[in-house]
Amino acid sequence: MAMKERVRVGGRSARIQAEVHKAVKELQQEADRAELTVPMIAARSGVTPSTIYRRWGDLAELLADVAAERLRPVSDPDDTGAQISDLKAYVEQYAEEFSSPTGRAMLRDIFSSATDATYTGQCCGYTFDHLNVIAGRAKARGEHPIVVQDMVDHVIAPIMYRILFGGGELTEAYWQALLDRAMPATA
Amino acid sequence: MAMKERVRVGGRSARIQAEVHKAVKELQQEADRAELTVPMIAARSGVTPSTIYRRWGDLAELLADVAAERLRPVSDPDDTGAQISDLKAYVEQYAEEFSSPTGRAMLRDIFSSATDATYTGQCCGYTFDHLNVIAGRAKARGEHPIVVQDMVDHVIAPIMYRILFGGGELTEAYWQALLDRAMPATA
Repeated sequence: MAMKERVRVGGRSARIQAEVHKAVKELQQEADRAELTVPMIAARSGVTPSTIYRRWGDLAELLADVAAERLRPVSDPDDTGAQISDLKAYVEQYAEEFSSPTGRAMLRDIFSSATDATYTGQCCGYTFDHLNVIAGRAKARGEHPIVVQDMVDHVIAPIMYRILFGGGELTEAYWQALLDRAMPATA
Repeated sequence: MAMKERVRVGGRSARIQAEVHKAVKELQQEADRAELTVPMIAARSGVTPSTIYRRWGDLAELLADVAAERLRPVSDPDDTGAQISDLKAYVEQYAEEFSSPTGRAMLRDIFSSATDATYTGQCCGYTFDHLNVIAGRAKARGEHPIVVQDMVDHVIAPIMYRILFGGGELTEAYWQALLDRAMPATA
């Protein structure tokens, strides 16, 4: 599972990360995003501000890291018994998650980071991982598997564009049509 | 030209906007993004900070407004004599503009705004306007015109996804393949 490689492991460094992330998530519940500061997060997590600056550089980086971590899937996508229903379940969840207020706030945090390639790449990696799992299962079942890059280009990307830029409502009919069009020919 | 509707017009309000935008652009050349403040912009533009807060709400909104304004096309897309070359020129320019450091900084500013729907919608509107002009010309020439929404979903969206999230290089071969695939059948 490629997904597992993205999990950070071990020791003091991991404990600091866990404590600081926890503090950020708690404070995000209690305060407005614009009110969050590094000293506030340091106080809540019991580490010094300089530890946070040394590790994350600035607040934007830290918030992006927390957001990317939240997007890390906790498990493989559900196995519904057929590729088309696996995909439908995944795409539905993707559209719902990122178009929700929480999802939009996470995207904003990820894009605010100056070195955003790390966190956006992480986010994109999860999507490829999920779709690869679905394609691998389809192959094992003897189905004609999706081309993962095609699904990203023609289903995921237009959904994300609509979430970020608008230009139309993100309805089930919309993504279902994208999915139908992008499915490989079964012949 | 639908594009023209997005141009703001007239009076004191327009003058304030022009002065403040000019000050932001100058300061962006001189200072780091993280160093910009509303009082600094107010001083440079000769308006009071409260005028800025009243009009834009906060710094993030102002920066998003400036970025969206910069993305406003100054003219219609070039008429190259055929739909396919009009599209190629437009897509090439779109990919270059948004993947450049300046383009990425503008996207970051647009996404940082809390009420981002205004500015992202503006940005998306320009894209639809451009593609509509290209489709209108193709029709007038007797060509089979593109379906604008299909071009946004299957060419623009995957280019933007790759700029924002990565997952592969944004090469000419990549967007050329998207364009070939999305072109309407000529039969």
